[in-house]
Amino acid sequence: MSIRTKVLQKTGPQEPFRITTIERRAPRPDDVVIDIKAAGICHSDIHTIRNEWGEAHFPLTVGHEIAGVVEAVGESVTKFAVGDRVGVGCLVNSCGECEQCRNGQEQDCLQGNVGTYNSEDVDGTITQGGYAQKVVVNENFVCTIPEGIDFDVAAPLLCAGITTYSPLARWKVKEGDKVAIVGLGGLGHMGVQIAAAKGADVTVISRSLRKEAEAKELGAKRVLASAEDPDFFKMHRGEFDLILSTISAAYSLDDYLGMLKPHGVMSVVGLPPEQLGVNMGRLIIGGKVLTGNNIGGIAETQEMLDFCAEHGIGAVIEKIGVTEVDQAYDRVVEGDVKFRFVIDTSTFDEVDVLA
Amino acid sequence: MSIRTKVLQKTGPQEPFRITTIERRAPRPDDVVIDIKAAGICHSDIHTIRNEWGEAHFPLTVGHEIAGVVEAVGESVTKFAVGDRVGVGCLVNSCGECEQCRNGQEQDCLQGNVGTYNSEDVDGTITQGGYAQKVVVNENFVCTIPEGIDFDVAAPLLCAGITTYSPLARWKVKEGDKVAIVGLGGLGHMGVQIAAAKGADVTVISRSLRKEAEAKELGAKRVLASAEDPDFFKMHRGEFDLILSTISAAYSLDDYLGMLKPHGVMSVVGLPPEQLGVNMGRLIIGGKVLTGNNIGGIAETQEMLDFCAEHGIGAVIEKIGVTEVDQAYDRVVEGDVKFRFVIDTSTFDEVDVLA
Repeated sequence: MSIRTKVLQKTGPQEPFRITTIERRAPRPDDVVIDIKAAGICHSDIHTIRNEWGEAHFPLTVGHEIAGVVEAVGESVTKFAVGDRVGVGCLVNSCGECEQCRNGQEQDCLQGNVGTYNSEDVDGTITQGGYAQKVVVNENFVCTIPEGIDFDVAAPLLCAGITTYSPLARWKVKEGDKVAIVGLGGLGHMGVQIAAAKGADVTVISRSLRKEAEAKELGAKRVLASAEDPDFFKMHRGEFDLILSTISAAYSLDDYLGMLKPHGVMSVVGLPPEQLGVNMGRLIIGGKVLTGNNIGGIAETQEMLDFCAEHGIGAVIEKIGVTEVDQAYDRVVEGDVKFRFVIDTSTFDEVDVLA
Repeated sequence: MSIRTKVLQKTGPQEPFRITTIERRAPRPDDVVIDIKAAGICHSDIHTIRNEWGEAHFPLTVGHEIAGVVEAVGESVTKFAVGDRVGVGCLVNSCGECEQCRNGQEQDCLQGNVGTYNSEDVDGTITQGGYAQKVVVNENFVCTIPEGIDFDVAAPLLCAGITTYSPLARWKVKEGDKVAIVGLGGLGHMGVQIAAAKGADVTVISRSLRKEAEAKELGAKRVLASAEDPDFFKMHRGEFDLILSTISAAYSLDDYLGMLKPHGVMSVVGLPPEQLGVNMGRLIIGGKVLTGNNIGGIAETQEMLDFCAEHGIGAVIEKIGVTEVDQAYDRVVEGDVKFRFVIDTSTFDEVDVLA
């Protein structure tokens, strides 16, 4: 039997959110039904809803930072039981058979994975995301949220956490490594905490020193303002083992690459709207690496959640009710949030649905 | 006592080569005197001589693909004896103490290494390269040329060989990997042989099929012409584990990155004159790697020479006499060489030096 749930829904890019109900599919044998406790607001949600990443399928519910409790399980589910604390991130299915899926890289499934929202599901329907009270997800795309992390600070780990954990793990950041996190927003504030927990010597690079105190509280040893000295990039030449860039505006790759040590790695998780120029000489001299990162696989997402629990890491959040999401979107776009909005989904109970 | 040697010398970017003599330094205790048998012509020699990479120090002798026989050794030399077959590549000194030197990455010495020519030596003189009969080099920058590789086919290994071996080793190319070598010149023809010897499934990508037969003889399974089909890059999307680009003209990075599998690596060893544009999304989706490579360290250069000897690999060369170098330069610039010119330094004996 299908499951009715309250959701925040958009009917078009310019329309405000409305609260309504939709049907989730009747759970299949390997599905888990999740009672959602908290849903993070990711900038990707906004890009999607505003048709900035192509045409969205309206009416649409977004949200891929989902934390909650298992409410029911299908008959063949083995990994979860009713009452378990769980999370769902950006993916809800993949082929399971290709080279990438077999290597635990479901995010790179060669058949095309199924995203948590605005994505064509295996049954041809369009997936609907986590700004909701309930969601039905295949157990292989559900992670355990360890005890000790609250649902609201855990939710953003499912996207912002894994997006920054994965490159720091892939490039083996370790004790004493000089790591720069560029930009201190939703992604950056997770990167700082994770890199610091790995023992790295963390520098935050931001345009100004406006968030210096917060950065240090998160574990940064220093904060550098890139826009305040014309010689900034010269002064810091060859300093870093790894630079993690969360910037989504245009910037000079050559300048940043110049700040890497030989064989250093610059990993990009922010997506500027246009091509950036890069001089191949910046990569050739010193054998430097420029790479990107798109979330991580499911096993790695679990590894990240366990790591965060072990190190007492969570997102720093501002909690909002379901009627405050439109305003929160505007504030995200203006960079006015420290550091992630999370929707308290219990507030769905306080509002009536659309007739 | 200093050592007098015949050399090919340029007195300015527009002047033809002249044959004259210069003094090499009196061997220090840790120096090796090498009787040069063959010297390869690298495109870098031409860029330097023509002031395309900044102002060269004239009069200048270039050449950093040097093969010969040890003629004398300083009193503290332990690695070499008179009569040994040896080679010298792009480096003749480095600080030996920095993090990079200690890691065997002398090419990235943080104090700045000493290049084989046109570089300021530790004594303040400008180094003079291998288009000569003799050279004096610190033993730590001399490699052994194994028996079984002739001097003339060995010489280009010291630059073109290590430049292509190093990225293939760094990124662990192995049996069955799909490797594309882009451009089939001095570098590319070494890359094909080395990748094939590692068991990779090698594709050569060239603008045309002009060199198809040669590419296959070198070990390529197939040759693709990138300029002959407007859909070329679409047709080969997601095919390669590693792409090694030897192109030194402008090209579309995004197109090439699109041909990589998820987590694939594009390593650049050719240096286009200007920035190339790259869309960060091409790196983010699939976690792809764009990197460069500049020769390799001394230990790795020895490893490469041993690898080449073991697999019967050498450069494919056209041998020339000392009076034919000007003409050879023009042909290199026109791409008219299969695949490397090597100067037979015994031909110095046939010509008189400048009065």
